[in-house]
Amino acid sequence: MIKKLALLTCAASLAAFPLAAQEPAKPEYPSPPEIVAKAKADEWVAIAPSDLMVMDLAPLGNKPRRVVIQLMPAPFSQGWVGNMRKLAAAKFWDGTSVNRVQDNYVVQWGDATEKKALPNTLKAVAESEYVTAFKIGMTNQAWGVGGKREAVMELLPRPPMGDNIPHFEDPYTRSFSFIKGFPIAMTSVSDYVRQGSAPVSLKLMNFPKELWPTHCYAMVGVGRNLSPDTGTGAELYTVIGHAPRHLDRNIALVGRVIEGIEHLSSLPRGTGALGFYETEAERVPILSVRIGKDAAELPAYEHLSTESASFAAYADARANRRDPFFILPAGGADICNIPVPVRRKAQ
Amino acid sequence: MIKKLALLTCAASLAAFPLAAQEPAKPEYPSPPEIVAKAKADEWVAIAPSDLMVMDLAPLGNKPRRVVIQLMPAPFSQGWVGNMRKLAAAKFWDGTSVNRVQDNYVVQWGDATEKKALPNTLKAVAESEYVTAFKIGMTNQAWGVGGKREAVMELLPRPPMGDNIPHFEDPYTRSFSFIKGFPIAMTSVSDYVRQGSAPVSLKLMNFPKELWPTHCYAMVGVGRNLSPDTGTGAELYTVIGHAPRHLDRNIALVGRVIEGIEHLSSLPRGTGALGFYETEAERVPILSVRIGKDAAELPAYEHLSTESASFAAYADARANRRDPFFILPAGGADICNIPVPVRRKAQ
Repeated sequence: MIKKLALLTCAASLAAFPLAAQEPAKPEYPSPPEIVAKAKADEWVAIAPSDLMVMDLAPLGNKPRRVVIQLMPAPFSQGWVGNMRKLAAAKFWDGTSVNRVQDNYVVQWGDATEKKALPNTLKAVAESEYVTAFKIGMTNQAWGVGGKREAVMELLPRPPMGDNIPHFEDPYTRSFSFIKGFPIAMTSVSDYVRQGSAPVSLKLMNFPKELWPTHCYAMVGVGRNLSPDTGTGAELYTVIGHAPRHLDRNIALVGRVIEGIEHLSSLPRGTGALGFYETEAERVPILSVRIGKDAAELPAYEHLSTESASFAAYADARANRRDPFFILPAGGADICNIPVPVRRKAQ
Repeated sequence: MIKKLALLTCAASLAAFPLAAQEPAKPEYPSPPEIVAKAKADEWVAIAPSDLMVMDLAPLGNKPRRVVIQLMPAPFSQGWVGNMRKLAAAKFWDGTSVNRVQDNYVVQWGDATEKKALPNTLKAVAESEYVTAFKIGMTNQAWGVGGKREAVMELLPRPPMGDNIPHFEDPYTRSFSFIKGFPIAMTSVSDYVRQGSAPVSLKLMNFPKELWPTHCYAMVGVGRNLSPDTGTGAELYTVIGHAPRHLDRNIALVGRVIEGIEHLSSLPRGTGALGFYETEAERVPILSVRIGKDAAELPAYEHLSTESASFAAYADARANRRDPFFILPAGGADICNIPVPVRRKAQ
């Protein structure tokens, strides 16, 4: 069995969802799951049922298939999220289906007929809402980070190395962080200074300027037509492969799947162009979609506060694996390889 | 239908395998698939059947399930690849099974009983083989890059931007490239110079120093016990989620799935610890594994030369999407978001 246990040791590292198995590790170098397991009770943040969207697919045999989505928190993407609340309240998705499964890309659902009437209260959201401008002088409270300024800046510790290899760099953006439990990319004021705008004090140089959520595994986005259309939120997809970060700032992200992603990611791939199912029979019926407060038998969920000391230690351990399986810590990690821990709240 | 076509437009971008649908694009800004479709015949490199490994799973209903793996080319991981050739010749995997499917991580296969005898000709490979040292003075021919020195250096063009935002950086390594059709990370001589070793000429500063393949989607690796064991190659896995780059240089990579990944990635997730199937009934039987030259009815495959002009244009387009769906090109891409195009050779 040791061969299994060994590869398991590394395998546990990517578990983004509840109930991840724990593996043994040297006490001085706990693994990421061990750090999460030892986080204090007050480092966990309850996710309000009103911020969840619950999608029940038709059962597979006698097995229920429930997908739980945490909606994107303010100030990100709130125009689309508001539309989704209206669509769920109107039971728009009941009787629609999962229509597309493209390997290493997305699973998409909505009204395959494209004839179902949308509520007339939906808002047309502007492309400018793909990013959130950070206004200098904005209080930290506005970001819900408990007054900790660092929390909206680059969170990850620089690796303790003597060289100047740029670890934690990202090919898609200046830097990244985690805000209210979500992965957030950003440009910073210093980028604009370099581009020739007015000088600012060093103190402000690293302030974020524009922020946006990133296309990581299990994130949920809004299908749309060609620009300037931005989609209503009625047609949704989730990422089931390597992070398609080129979509960042080009499509709205409105949440992420926190439980049940396997009911989508393990569906048969569509054989039509781009993974669309070619027949009605292949489509997976959606029985209902409800906001969490209106969903039956929904447990309570919580996420590890991304402003907590345990999250910082977890992120560091994700970037520098020192538990027994590993020979060489990477010395860095990309934003989508630091999944925010989410779990069912203990009863 | 336009809503479908629109999200499709972006969706096509991740197609790593043959038969990807083409989408319309402005002629002046072809999409990545269009660039690939227009590549010249001599920019494609035939993959020898002797460098393929073909795994036939038990059919699903009456549908055959074949997975085709391209073995890692020299000089990378050849100790393990040699073992795999011996294991296939000995029909070791016939009658074994897929035993583990962990969401957003790996599918693993091999002998679930761990009692099957291994050929006594297998080689124990040293951990030092996880990386390949680049010896200064080594000829480019040794790398099989046709004498083009640039091909083993950072291939991707720097974005044509006036600022100094570090695009194409990578949180896991100094730089990356593509060699013989595979994604390869590297440190460079200049990193060692910074660390205080002897000065070298500027001409040599950017020469690669150590190179290693990276854990991208569909890459195939070798399960192992705790260090110093490196695995024989009898227990294999493939990546079915976001690139677990922290495994780079910690586990051997021996190839990648070039066709049929969906037969693995869409399997039901295991409910045991770390995605292991808990019952014999869940395991997916492997009928046979053969080196391509010994496999029945195997078509010819080819990959786009990663040293070709079309690949450079494709990589640039992956990093800077300008086709009609996109509003804002990313200005960068990570190594695993530039999948090397592979296709069946036209008859």
